[in-house]
Amino acid sequence: MLPTKAYAAPAASVPLAPFDFERREVGPHDVLIDIQFCGVCHSDLHQVRDEWGGSVFPMVPGHEIVGRISKVGDHVKNFKVGDLAGVGCMVDSCRTCPSCQEGLEQYCEVGMVGTYGGREKGTGKPTYGGYSKQIVVDEQYTLKVSDKLDPARVAPLLCAGITTYSPLRQWKVGEGHRVGVMGLGGLGHMAVKLAAAMGAEVTVLSTSPNKEADAKELGAHKFVVTKEKDQLKSVSNYFDFIINTVSAPLDLSQYVNLLRRDGTMILLGVPPEAPELHAFALIGKRRRIAGSLIGGIAETQEMLDFCAEHNIMSDIEMIDIKDINEAYERMLKGDVKYRFVIDLATLN
Amino acid sequence: MLPTKAYAAPAASVPLAPFDFERREVGPHDVLIDIQFCGVCHSDLHQVRDEWGGSVFPMVPGHEIVGRISKVGDHVKNFKVGDLAGVGCMVDSCRTCPSCQEGLEQYCEVGMVGTYGGREKGTGKPTYGGYSKQIVVDEQYTLKVSDKLDPARVAPLLCAGITTYSPLRQWKVGEGHRVGVMGLGGLGHMAVKLAAAMGAEVTVLSTSPNKEADAKELGAHKFVVTKEKDQLKSVSNYFDFIINTVSAPLDLSQYVNLLRRDGTMILLGVPPEAPELHAFALIGKRRRIAGSLIGGIAETQEMLDFCAEHNIMSDIEMIDIKDINEAYERMLKGDVKYRFVIDLATLN
Repeated sequence: MLPTKAYAAPAASVPLAPFDFERREVGPHDVLIDIQFCGVCHSDLHQVRDEWGGSVFPMVPGHEIVGRISKVGDHVKNFKVGDLAGVGCMVDSCRTCPSCQEGLEQYCEVGMVGTYGGREKGTGKPTYGGYSKQIVVDEQYTLKVSDKLDPARVAPLLCAGITTYSPLRQWKVGEGHRVGVMGLGGLGHMAVKLAAAMGAEVTVLSTSPNKEADAKELGAHKFVVTKEKDQLKSVSNYFDFIINTVSAPLDLSQYVNLLRRDGTMILLGVPPEAPELHAFALIGKRRRIAGSLIGGIAETQEMLDFCAEHNIMSDIEMIDIKDINEAYERMLKGDVKYRFVIDLATLN
Repeated sequence: MLPTKAYAAPAASVPLAPFDFERREVGPHDVLIDIQFCGVCHSDLHQVRDEWGGSVFPMVPGHEIVGRISKVGDHVKNFKVGDLAGVGCMVDSCRTCPSCQEGLEQYCEVGMVGTYGGREKGTGKPTYGGYSKQIVVDEQYTLKVSDKLDPARVAPLLCAGITTYSPLRQWKVGEGHRVGVMGLGGLGHMAVKLAAAMGAEVTVLSTSPNKEADAKELGAHKFVVTKEKDQLKSVSNYFDFIINTVSAPLDLSQYVNLLRRDGTMILLGVPPEAPELHAFALIGKRRRIAGSLIGGIAETQEMLDFCAEHNIMSDIEMIDIKDINEAYERMLKGDVKYRFVIDLATLN
């Protein structure tokens, strides 16, 4: 077993603190990754506070992991020691259900094994995430990371990046499409960059007029202050797609009405209170609302390769691991541009 | 002007009573139809009670019209005196917007002209529907009805038929698909017949166990009592499509969870209180919810031709027009199999 230093939440709503545990030995199909950087996702916060229920404690969060491979198992084919590698939201799945067979492991019908808060297949042991010095992962659930990009800024691509990339690809977003992005946080800022890189016209829909300059700098072509009635009206029946990353309470119909006929809103965020769905808003223009969950392993690799090709990375604020609890407080206030990333060199 | 006998609601929530008015003269592109039968749609009831707002009174409801052409304008090309013809939910639209150009007049961006409760283009006069002896309609908004079918049983196809046919075609429903139908009323019973004729496996989802025999007779392959937990569980993650015709309050998530990954629920009904939309139910399986509104003129003709080919008609209960108010009361209780149709021979 491999003694591993980490930060963990000992119980729901208790601050994270140093925690020592053991990773499994490197199996024949495993790689050992020395973690360099780990992004801080909003779902880390939800889960350490057990806001979705079912959290397992102690919990070592973190599923936006980048590091270097320091050991490989005997049968590992695609990685070697020294490679830069990434791990996203899952470290395993059943591998046999139709979804797994189609490369959509995130929708595994048995249930994917989360990078943290899950249970290892076979042993049933809890999985621990990337707020730690090292991780052992089956190579099939490990991603290749290009040396061309800043690894700290790549880390958030493993969740925020793929979560926005996957629906953009699924719905074939590209040139000639008008895309609205609701919520300019970790997911939203990646949606802007990716949709723009795919050739779409991107509009940020925001309640805050003071985010306009930032939105444009990220690549948005237009900016609409949704509290201004005239501005909102100017984009009525306008969008082919709206990427909705909002996880705060919201008036869904107000935004659905911005879709053109046959337009689709893609839900990525989970508001604490379910919004009302007014059927007329969909029926009157054959509009659609869909959900999407991260992406499969092959698609995550495709996304990383796309980002390397287009020089796309997350905008981040690097933190020491001792400051994680303060970072959570700032996230709650939306006070981060746009993702905190933990420098694991600060964990000793 | 053409003096016309009808039944009208003089004001919101006042019973319908005999009403005389004048139709416009038959213009060069118009046909005059002697109405034989008119279906009674649930939206007639909503609108005579002004439950959706904006109703214009006096109101002559009725948009499931079948009759024989008794006069044609000088420039009419596709109809002749004696032809059996139908009129559905609209009698005009702007004809120039992208939706009209694409044959999707129901989504006319200026607004289609409803068969009743609308305003005639040009004159601005109120439109009056099919609870009347005759109607004057532009031939472009008139449908051909096959003499092969019982015209009384064809009438409900003009709304209930096309409203269910259009989404089944839009989402390319056919062999190999599992389709759930929620609500076994005017729309639901047509959804069962049409989806089965298209080759799908059809399951009726009902709160009432006593509807099973009827559902099977209509062509359903399976029947699930949604109040029985075991039965509901047996179709969890099961359907490719759910046609949701329910316009009563409902727990949307319970039904969304019956969709497979990438499955779509199509909303056709409008519940009085908007149901809650729980984002996880969509996100966890990339599910979709869409709305759909009747169908375009060309697609309505296609549906009528499909029904003639497959011998599909509505199951109806014929009424005299004097019994319309009682029929509304029975509709409210769901006491009709499955559509009331007014025999206009009873209006004199």
